[in-house]
Amino acid sequence: MVKSDTMVSMSSLPDMQNTIDERNIAIDKVGVRNVMYPIAVLDCANGKQHSIGNFQLTVDLPKEFKGTHMSRFVEILNQYSKEISVQALPEMLKALKERLKADFAHLEVTFPFFIEKKAPVSGMPGMMQYTCGFKATQNCTFDMVTTVEIPVTTLCPCSKEISDRGAHNQRGYVKVAIRTNKLVWIEEIISMVEACGSAPLYPLLKRPDEKFVTELAYDNPRFVEDMVREVALAFEADERITSYEIEVENHESIHAHNAYAFVARDKKIT
Amino acid sequence: MVKSDTMVSMSSLPDMQNTIDERNIAIDKVGVRNVMYPIAVLDCANGKQHSIGNFQLTVDLPKEFKGTHMSRFVEILNQYSKEISVQALPEMLKALKERLKADFAHLEVTFPFFIEKKAPVSGMPGMMQYTCGFKATQNCTFDMVTTVEIPVTTLCPCSKEISDRGAHNQRGYVKVAIRTNKLVWIEEIISMVEACGSAPLYPLLKRPDEKFVTELAYDNPRFVEDMVREVALAFEADERITSYEIEVENHESIHAHNAYAFVARDKKIT
Amino acid sequence: MVKSDTMVSMSSLPDMQNTIDERNIAIDKVGVRNVMYPIAVLDCANGKQHSIGNFQLTVDLPKEFKGTHMSRFVEILNQYSKEISVQALPEMLKALKERLKADFAHLEVTFPFFIEKKAPVSGMPGMMQYTCGFKATQNCTFDMVTTVEIPVTTLCPCSKEISDRGAHNQRGYVKVAIRTNKLVWIEEIISMVEACGSAPLYPLLKRPDEKFVTELAYDNPRFVEDMVREVALAFEADERITSYEIEVENHESIHAHNAYAFVARDKKIT
Amino acid sequence: MVKSDTMVSMSSLPDMQNTIDERNIAIDKVGVRNVMYPIAVLDCANGKQHSIGNFQLTVDLPKEFKGTHMSRFVEILNQYSKEISVQALPEMLKALKERLKADFAHLEVTFPFFIEKKAPVSGMPGMMQYTCGFKATQNCTFDMVTTVEIPVTTLCPCSKEISDRGAHNQRGYVKVAIRTNKLVWIEEIISMVEACGSAPLYPLLKRPDEKFVTELAYDNPRFVEDMVREVALAFEADERITSYEIEVENHESIHAHNAYAFVARDKKIT
Repeated sequence: MVKSDTMVSMSSLPDMQNTIDERNIAIDKVGVRNVMYPIAVLDCANGKQHSIGNFQLTVDLPKEFKGTHMSRFVEILNQYSKEISVQALPEMLKALKERLKADFAHLEVTFPFFIEKKAPVSGMPGMMQYTCGFKATQNCTFDMVTTVEIPVTTLCPCSKEISDRGAHNQRGYVKVAIRTNKLVWIEEIISMVEACGSAPLYPLLKRPDEKFVTELAYDNPRFVEDMVREVALAFEADERITSYEIEVENHESIHAHNAYAFVARDKKIT
Repeated sequence: MVKSDTMVSMSSLPDMQNTIDERNIAIDKVGVRNVMYPIAVLDCANGKQHSIGNFQLTVDLPKEFKGTHMSRFVEILNQYSKEISVQALPEMLKALKERLKADFAHLEVTFPFFIEKKAPVSGMPGMMQYTCGFKATQNCTFDMVTTVEIPVTTLCPCSKEISDRGAHNQRGYVKVAIRTNKLVWIEEIISMVEACGSAPLYPLLKRPDEKFVTELAYDNPRFVEDMVREVALAFEADERITSYEIEVENHESIHAHNAYAFVARDKKIT
Repeated sequence: MVKSDTMVSMSSLPDMQNTIDERNIAIDKVGVRNVMYPIAVLDCANGKQHSIGNFQLTVDLPKEFKGTHMSRFVEILNQYSKEISVQALPEMLKALKERLKADFAHLEVTFPFFIEKKAPVSGMPGMMQYTCGFKATQNCTFDMVTTVEIPVTTLCPCSKEISDRGAHNQRGYVKVAIRTNKLVWIEEIISMVEACGSAPLYPLLKRPDEKFVTELAYDNPRFVEDMVREVALAFEADERITSYEIEVENHESIHAHNAYAFVARDKKIT
Repeated sequence: MVKSDTMVSMSSLPDMQNTIDERNIAIDKVGVRNVMYPIAVLDCANGKQHSIGNFQLTVDLPKEFKGTHMSRFVEILNQYSKEISVQALPEMLKALKERLKADFAHLEVTFPFFIEKKAPVSGMPGMMQYTCGFKATQNCTFDMVTTVEIPVTTLCPCSKEISDRGAHNQRGYVKVAIRTNKLVWIEEIISMVEACGSAPLYPLLKRPDEKFVTELAYDNPRFVEDMVREVALAFEADERITSYEIEVENHESIHAHNAYAFVARDKKIT
C-alpha cells in the first residue's frame, strides 16, 4: 500500500459507471472472467479438498446504468472462496446480487478435483484428476448445474466384431452436466460414469492390473452411442438427478478426428 | 490402396451399427468432431477464399438403432468442402440427412478468414485474420447462425476520467452470432463491430498510423458494457439481422483477468 | 485510408526506437509473434498448397539501439507470404536482415498441411491434416529445421503379451524436427514416420478398412520407445537427413496421462 | 481393488520392457507427461501452499533395453508430491534414478502459485496467480531451473511520444527461467520483474487505485526491448542468479499479433 499524495478519497473521484445510459439496452450478463482463485471444495472422502478455480462472475445490468463495478466481484470472491459448494454458493450469489444491486447473479467455475484411486488388482494407489464445475444462478430462486469431465477407455464394438484379432480402443471423455434435488457427491457421479465405459482409467497400473483392464475393455465394447445411453440409463435410475446433459467424445485411435454423441433430458418436462 | 487377401466385400462383414438397440434412448446428436478440412468460403472482395475448417457434423439417431455410420460424415464433407457458404450448406446438410437416414443434420464449423486492411494514414496494406463460423441445422427447414470473432482496442472511460494523464486500454474480443433473413457478408459484420470499439486493430501501422489510432482510442473510451450496447444498436438497425448474441471480453491491461459483457436478442420474440 | 489533418509526414514524428540505449544489453531476439497469415507452401502432389501460417519473426538488436521497428516485419511477411518454402526462405530472411539492419534474422512458422489419403482396402479418399513448420535463421549462412507432427496408432506390446485377448491401443503423436542437405518433401517425412507406427491413421475408413487397420495394429505392437527407435533408424538410413529430433507422445487409453519418448542426434557430431 | 481370478503374481507375467533391444539406439528421455497431481510448494509468506502440478518425469534408457517401466514414475511422484521444492527435488530425482536404474532423471513441472496482493492505494487485498515451474536433472550432479510467468502492464514509449493524448498499453507476459546458487523465493523473482513493467497488475483495484496505476504506467513507458533489458539488469545485479533467460510478449492493444523480445545469459560463460 503506497502512502502518497496520489491517495484520494473514493468520493472525490467521478463514478462513470453510475452515470445514466440513454441507449435503452439492458445487459444480460456483465462481470469478470478467467479469474483464477485458490478454493476449497467439499470432498466425500476427506471433508474438504484444496483446488484452484477458474471463475466467471456476472450480474445483469438494467438499461439505465452505464456500467457495473468490476472490483466488487473480486471482493465477493475473496470473501467466499474458502468454500465453493452446493451448500455455500447461494449465500455467495445473494451477496453478489446485493453488492451489485442486481436482479440476477451468475457464477461459473471449473476446477481440478482429485480422487485417490487404487489399481484394480495390485491395489497400488495414485491420484486421478477430474475437471469439475458449477454453473449457478440466483435471482428469486437458486438454480445450479454440476459438471464433471471423466476420461474413460472405450473399445469399438464394430472393430472387435469384424476383426480376427484385437479391437481399436482409445481414451474418451465423458462430460456430464446435471441438476439434482438432493446432494450428489462428485465422487458418485464419477462412479456412475466410469461404470459405463469399456474400462475406467487409472493413475497407476502394474502388469497384473494392465492385463485386467485390457481384458475388461475387450469384454465390454462401447460405441460413443453406447456410452451416452448407458450413462443416461444410470441418470434415469437415480431419482436425485432431475435433468442431465451427456456428451461423449472418443479420441479415435484410427482417425485424427473424434467420434461424438450427445443426449439431454429434463425429467420434469419430457 | 492395398491389394491383399484382407480385401473383403462390404456386405460380408457384420454391420453392428444397424443392429437393434433395446435401451429405448434416442440420441440427440451423434457424429464426428474436430475434423480439419481444407475449404473454400465466399469472400466479398475476391469471390472465394481458401481456408481450413474445423468441423463438427452430427445427426440424430432414433432409439431403435445401435449406432450411426461415422465414415459417411467424412464422405459428405469430402464431397462438399469446395464451397462452405450460406448458399451451399442446405444442400450439404440434406445430403447428410439422406445418407444417414436421419431427421436432423447439424454442422458446426469455424475457420480463419482474412481481409486485406490498409493502415488508416499511411495506407500500408496487410492481412488481418478473423475467426468465423457457421452453425447450421437442417430438418424440414434450414436454420443457420453465422459467428465472427473480432479483436478491437478498448480504452477504459473510468480510467480516462479519473486520471490526470493516460488511460488504460487493451485488446478486447467481440464474438457475435447472428441469424439473418438475407445475405450479410462477413466483411459487413466485421465493419459494424469494428466501428463500435475505441479503435480497430491493424496488421501493420507506421508511426503516423500509430499516432492516429492512439488518439482515436483516447477520444472514444468504451467499457465492455458500451461495446455490447453499441454493437446491439448496430444490429438492431440492420433489418437483415433477425437475432443476435454479442459477447465482449477485454483482456484488461491492469488485471490478469478479463472484463466481460453479454447481450442476446431474438427480434421475432421480444 | 483516412484523409485528415492527422496526416503527418513520417519524418516529422520522433523515432524513439532509433534513440541510443545506455543499458549496454544486446537483445538476442526481438520482433513479432503469433502473426496469422495466409500462405502458399510447396506440395509434392500439386505444386502448391494454400495454408495459414502462424509466424514468429525476429532479429537481434545491438546494445546501442533502444528498439526495433515492428511494422517492418509485417511488411516483409506481406511481401513474401506467397511462397513459404525451403527455396524461398533465404531470400525472405535476407530481406528481413537488411530492412532491420540486423546480423541475424529468424523465422518460425507452423501451418496445417493436407494430404489426400486413400483408405487401405476400399480406396475411399479423404484429406488428412498434419501440422508442419520451419525454423530458419539467416546470418552469414542459412540454417533451417523442418518440423512435422504425425498422428499414428500405437498398440502396447506389453498389454498384448500379457493379456488373453485384446491389447490397449491409442492415438499417439510423433513430432520430428530435421535438418537436411537436400530437399526432403513433407510427404516423404510423413511416409517414413507412418511406417513406424502400429498403423497409420486415415480420414475415412469403411468396414473392410477398419478390419485391416485393427489387425495391422494388433500385428505391429509398438511402445513409445519402439516408435522413436524405428523413426531414428529410418532417419539414420536417409543420407539427406543430417540431424534429427524425434518425440513420441501416446495418449494412453488406460491412463489420463501420456507416455513419452525423445531421441536427438546430429550426424555431423556423434 | 478387485479380488478375482485374474489376480496373478507379478512374476508370472512376462516383462516385455526388460527384454533385449537389438536396434542399438539409446533413448535420451522416456517417461510420462501431462501427469496432473496435487502438490505442496514452499511459500515465503505461509510456509507451504497447496497447488496442482502438471508433471513430466523422464529418464534415459540404455540401448540394450526394450522399454522403461512407466508405472514407477507415478509411484515416485505419489511418494514425493507432498513437497515440490528446491530442497526436496534432489532426493526425489535420486529415487527415480535408482528405481528406474537410469543415469539421468529429469523432472519438469508447472503449477499455479498465488500471492496475496494489496491494491496500491486502497490496500484492498486479493489473490494474484503466477504460473511457476521447475526443470530439474539429476545424474552425478543436480541441476535446476526455476521458471515464472509474470503478467504486467506495458505502455508504448513510441505511442506516448508521438501522440497528443493517451498512449496504447496492454497486458504483457514476462517469462523468466533462472539458475541460482542460493535460494531465491518465487516471490522475490516476481517482485524483481514487476518493478520493470510500466505498472504491476492487481487482482482488485478501486477507483483511487485505478487512477494510480493508470498514471504510473503513463509515467513509465516500456517497449518489450526495455522490459527484457530492465529484467536483465535486475538479474545481473543479483549475485544469487547464475544464469537467466527472459522472454517478454506484449499482447499489443493495436494489433492482433504480439510484440516479443528475448535475452539469455549464463554468467559463468560470458
